[in-house]
Amino acid sequence: MAITRTAVGILGAGPAGLMLSHLLHRSGIESVVVDNRSRGDIENTVRAGILEPGSVRMLTGTGVGDRVLREGHEHQGTSLRFDGVHHRVDFKALTGESVWLYPQTDVFTDLADARARDGGDVRFGARDTAVMDAGSNRPGIVHTDAEGRRQEIRCDYLVGADGSRSICRQEIPQEHRRHYFREYPFAWFGIITQAPPSAPELVYTHSTRGFALISQRTAMLQRMYFQCAPDEETAAWSDDRIWHELQQRVAGEDGFRLVEGPITEKTVLRFRSFVAEPMRWRRLLLAGDAAHTVPPTGAKGLNLALADVRILAELLERAVHGGDDAALDSYGPRALARVWKAQHFSYWMTTMLHTPPGADPFDMRRQLGELRTVTGSESGARLLAEGYTGWPDRVPE
Amino acid sequence: MAITRTAVGILGAGPAGLMLSHLLHRSGIESVVVDNRSRGDIENTVRAGILEPGSVRMLTGTGVGDRVLREGHEHQGTSLRFDGVHHRVDFKALTGESVWLYPQTDVFTDLADARARDGGDVRFGARDTAVMDAGSNRPGIVHTDAEGRRQEIRCDYLVGADGSRSICRQEIPQEHRRHYFREYPFAWFGIITQAPPSAPELVYTHSTRGFALISQRTAMLQRMYFQCAPDEETAAWSDDRIWHELQQRVAGEDGFRLVEGPITEKTVLRFRSFVAEPMRWRRLLLAGDAAHTVPPTGAKGLNLALADVRILAELLERAVHGGDDAALDSYGPRALARVWKAQHFSYWMTTMLHTPPGADPFDMRRQLGELRTVTGSESGARLLAEGYTGWPDRVPE
Repeated sequence: MAITRTAVGILGAGPAGLMLSHLLHRSGIESVVVDNRSRGDIENTVRAGILEPGSVRMLTGTGVGDRVLREGHEHQGTSLRFDGVHHRVDFKALTGESVWLYPQTDVFTDLADARARDGGDVRFGARDTAVMDAGSNRPGIVHTDAEGRRQEIRCDYLVGADGSRSICRQEIPQEHRRHYFREYPFAWFGIITQAPPSAPELVYTHSTRGFALISQRTAMLQRMYFQCAPDEETAAWSDDRIWHELQQRVAGEDGFRLVEGPITEKTVLRFRSFVAEPMRWRRLLLAGDAAHTVPPTGAKGLNLALADVRILAELLERAVHGGDDAALDSYGPRALARVWKAQHFSYWMTTMLHTPPGADPFDMRRQLGELRTVTGSESGARLLAEGYTGWPDRVPE
Repeated sequence: MAITRTAVGILGAGPAGLMLSHLLHRSGIESVVVDNRSRGDIENTVRAGILEPGSVRMLTGTGVGDRVLREGHEHQGTSLRFDGVHHRVDFKALTGESVWLYPQTDVFTDLADARARDGGDVRFGARDTAVMDAGSNRPGIVHTDAEGRRQEIRCDYLVGADGSRSICRQEIPQEHRRHYFREYPFAWFGIITQAPPSAPELVYTHSTRGFALISQRTAMLQRMYFQCAPDEETAAWSDDRIWHELQQRVAGEDGFRLVEGPITEKTVLRFRSFVAEPMRWRRLLLAGDAAHTVPPTGAKGLNLALADVRILAELLERAVHGGDDAALDSYGPRALARVWKAQHFSYWMTTMLHTPPGADPFDMRRQLGELRTVTGSESGARLLAEGYTGWPDRVPE
């Protein structure tokens, strides 16, 4: 058994874990990151991403690089489509901010490259990983490395950035934790298609047939989603049937049509809301999906993970360098203020745009009343833009 | 049978019917108003009221009088109370507008006085009232008057301003009408108490025990409400139990307490959303509660009724004086644009502040996330203030 001693042990090499390790490194704090997946596996899992300006600034302002600015796409607004016409929400004009279309997979790659460049200890492809002595003053991670050797990491603080099925979360005794949970009675049918963009910005579509989201990826590859039942089978959907359904949902008097192409991927994304409290228990800290998941409608998941670790890095610095362990008590309350706003924002975008099962004509008309209120009022549009771009810095904390 | 010929027959002498008759009179158009209730009965039905500035301007700007300004109370804002502290929404600062606390009963009296002063034909205490030939070019109202004589009124246009149980609405054949309906799984327990005000403005309270609204009436008479089950029995609630419940719902770290007094009235108000379409069918027009009802949370009912007849009076003038019957086709669409925004506003205020049956901790936290988003953002607070004060004039039509 090889033993490594470090200040911060991090389980999970997704964006939350890698960004935290990167920020700690910049503060002169050592960390070790362990993930069961290989780097290649993570890079082959295609994940979409809309980055808030605060997330972009974290990448460009901390030396991760500016590939996001070169290869990502700035979106200065989005379209809410209802009654068969577009209603643009101009983020830039309303808040001075834009969001960036940049896949989560690329954020991962940039962070993994930065950590490798700076000599970070990031261990992909671990096996038999477990948490040790989570409640003690010297918690640890054990795992078997790629060469089959048993490894132990002992740290001052242990961070669970290990995703929605977090094993770290389970270490907090039941009597000390509280989980908040909400399942939604619908899912997204997602496709990737080989076609040029149908629109320059995301189009969130309300229709009597249910929600649809027209998104983008590259010049010749596009992402689209439409609301479906949680138990929908992709096998039941031919390309023709999918295009017919999507075209009907976005159809309107302005003649808007989607650019069709071969469909290379079909998946059903179930979605739910989840929050785990507390985010700190003794020397264990949770970050990102390990602590909270949101429905994808508001594009908040990745941004919340990065917001978590921005706070956490600052407080860990005070704890590790300044010996101020109590500083970490403010981590959960500070992070959760944003998390619950994001939970509401995602819930709002979801319920405003999706057709609930058993919806009656009252629901549909009321939704249109809401959409008209929001897009017809500068205040309403700005409230949405503030949520979408991540709230002004003064608000969340 | 005495027969009266007039331009506009109006069933219902509530604020909608009387204001319409008043506005038509100012345009030189004759009308007759019929109501089954006596004037005394209507004046003895105590009904609360929050007037939008547009409603106040209709009273003061059309010669009804300025008693609303002298005896009503200007409210420049309201309080959303959650987490045990007040969060003020400053209508005046956010929109330049105020609302006025002025009972609907007083609006009725002012309008009835104005109609009497101007020699209006307003017939209270009618019996055996019925609509005749609603689908014809010469519809009518028949009734028995206070002296027992049978009366017939023949008119060019018939307006159903006869409240939520409208008989006029039933005259539109089923195949031509569509009704939208929503019942809410809770009600309001309303009291009147002999006590001075507990707060200078309305206090909309979110609590884990359910919603409460602290309102005002006069210097020594106050109105309060708390969320209850739709089948709650007033007999089960002693004064002591009511005060205990209300005090608990508003309790908080700021020490806010309600001023208690003898409770002189206890009622359970069930509430629902309802919209009837179309609002015009041939020569029959619906206005106010006959066409739509809203939950009381947003205080929109009376204001919507007045907004309806403002549009209707303008269009009836074009129809009666200008012979432009087709102008009335725009009545429903114009009025309904505001109605559906108000339906959503009332639904929003209701769902943001009430505890739904079976609410779990996720719901409660998400509501707090929403309340913090709305009160923590100038845009959010302004969006609420815009709805509460009735939307800027440019928006609704």
